[in-house]
Amino acid sequence: MTNLKNDLLLRALRGESVERVPVWMMRQAGRYLPEYIAIRNKYGFFERCQTPELAAEITIQPVDIVGVDAAILFSDILVVPQAMGLEVQLIESKGPVLPDPIKTVADVKRIHVPEVEDKLGYVMDAIKLIKSRLDGRVPLIGFAGAPWTLLCYMVQGKGSKTFDEAKAFCYTQPELAHQVLQMITDTTIQYLQAQIKAGADTVQLFDSWGGLLGPADFENFSLKYMRQIVAAVKDLAPIIVFAKGAWHSLEAMSKTGAAGLGVDWCVPAGMARQLAGDKVCLQGNFDPAKLLSPIPVIVKETEEMIRAFGKQRYIANLGHGILPNVPVDHAKAFVNTVKNFDYSTL
Amino acid sequence: MTNLKNDLLLRALRGESVERVPVWMMRQAGRYLPEYIAIRNKYGFFERCQTPELAAEITIQPVDIVGVDAAILFSDILVVPQAMGLEVQLIESKGPVLPDPIKTVADVKRIHVPEVEDKLGYVMDAIKLIKSRLDGRVPLIGFAGAPWTLLCYMVQGKGSKTFDEAKAFCYTQPELAHQVLQMITDTTIQYLQAQIKAGADTVQLFDSWGGLLGPADFENFSLKYMRQIVAAVKDLAPIIVFAKGAWHSLEAMSKTGAAGLGVDWCVPAGMARQLAGDKVCLQGNFDPAKLLSPIPVIVKETEEMIRAFGKQRYIANLGHGILPNVPVDHAKAFVNTVKNFDYSTL
Repeated sequence: MTNLKNDLLLRALRGESVERVPVWMMRQAGRYLPEYIAIRNKYGFFERCQTPELAAEITIQPVDIVGVDAAILFSDILVVPQAMGLEVQLIESKGPVLPDPIKTVADVKRIHVPEVEDKLGYVMDAIKLIKSRLDGRVPLIGFAGAPWTLLCYMVQGKGSKTFDEAKAFCYTQPELAHQVLQMITDTTIQYLQAQIKAGADTVQLFDSWGGLLGPADFENFSLKYMRQIVAAVKDLAPIIVFAKGAWHSLEAMSKTGAAGLGVDWCVPAGMARQLAGDKVCLQGNFDPAKLLSPIPVIVKETEEMIRAFGKQRYIANLGHGILPNVPVDHAKAFVNTVKNFDYSTL
Repeated sequence: MTNLKNDLLLRALRGESVERVPVWMMRQAGRYLPEYIAIRNKYGFFERCQTPELAAEITIQPVDIVGVDAAILFSDILVVPQAMGLEVQLIESKGPVLPDPIKTVADVKRIHVPEVEDKLGYVMDAIKLIKSRLDGRVPLIGFAGAPWTLLCYMVQGKGSKTFDEAKAFCYTQPELAHQVLQMITDTTIQYLQAQIKAGADTVQLFDSWGGLLGPADFENFSLKYMRQIVAAVKDLAPIIVFAKGAWHSLEAMSKTGAAGLGVDWCVPAGMARQLAGDKVCLQGNFDPAKLLSPIPVIVKETEEMIRAFGKQRYIANLGHGILPNVPVDHAKAFVNTVKNFDYSTL
């Protein structure tokens, strides 16, 4: 049993009845908040991630300021490659750089499956502190990057529109790619299990670059590994899978045992529900750029989104992370529209 | 009647019977060819576009070297904003920069619908020279950027993963956005009609950033204008519409009257055919990164693609532009697999 004062998110994920739709925003603990920027200006990226006090403060900011129905751990998906032995640099406004990416068999020898509690203990410390500070106000979402998305960075060495070096690595050296993907998977299973043990109420797997693969390659290089992770985690806490752009595999993802599926704004609600079936909670899918619209447009389109997805088994969210240039009032308008919607009209 | 020695592409677009599937590659006149790089090292980008002799040489290179079934004009979609009065800089390996992008009503006053023959006459001169040099060997494809994709650059001022400033412009100042889109549309109609008059056998409309819009916004800010262009061009020559990532609107695009629809590698062939119906020619959809695979993988997956799409009303192509780091032998393997496939097995 939960002692949460607001457990809407967890009830939606379990398919239980809710009075209203829960709402949070991907990257809600981030650069659109002046309070976040104030902390960012004082501490480096990894200092913020690795100092539980700072990670807790940043994680809780959007709960206090914007009024979301869940907190999501402030961290980065690249702490996993870092724990596996790769150097990761995160330079503000430049994106991540891995100066020694993986290209060969010899490179793979440089990485290993770590003891997660040893290498990423600071994350679990942050989770414990956040849970204590939240004091049951809202649930805490833990997260990790999907193996394919992490491999993208581990091979390409930096952000990319096409991640063609990562794809070429998979297509040219598939056995080696599968070996790396399995190592990431084994690490991620440990990592998410530890997050849940430390207090995360649910976890989300982010496959930000899933949409770069065609359906067969998505199954082979991404979904196969996400399936292992879901299986290893789902009995401990509900897990949400979000593979941006992988609309073609919504049905396959719904069969993994994930409690929730993230959808982006290109997927109509009716199609998402049809492909995912009745047993999964859908999460999404407001166009992040639309939060730059005038507030009346945000209100109108958020209401349309709720009407399209319905009240049950649904979590209102963006279709990808919130953009840094969104005014805080616009983020609040989105959240408040979900909270104040007249659900008796559905 | 055509006097082309190889009119496979045009027959496929008209829905006429073909002995084998025609093949070409988006960006086939480009950086993977050493012969192209040799010219690039001597002349600036716009010098290459604006000098018919150079544009012709570059356009014909892949016909001679790789053996494709069509030439596509060497040019850039940004010559249209340039002709409309915006400064466009194309710096190699940095992407396009428009130093004075459109943000306000006053900015829109700086652009106009030009006399295309006056501002872009060099393109028509290049087309005439190419047609003469090709001497009927293969058809010539003209092209333009779709209005939405051009607006993306005209507002954002440079390449972007999300083009959120362009989207915010549309969402915040929709009337102004529609005014700009209509000006681009009027220019593009003139431009494609002039290309056809100069000798282009078919034209393609590239909506490279169509996939950034959800279905309703795609209709409102992109398809509405592509529909006008198709209507104004289709009786002069067959037109191919390629909106990357806009899988959700394949059915709507098939109803524009376009002869061909480009599809990217995330859309399974059967789904594309089901959505597009029987009357449209499909074009695509090999994953460009897969041309970095070993040749036996390229051959195997190209054959699978042909079997999935079938022989009639189909043009083999990539699902987006060829990557600069593809070995020429790999591009040839793709083209030759299409040419040498045993079509009696279909």
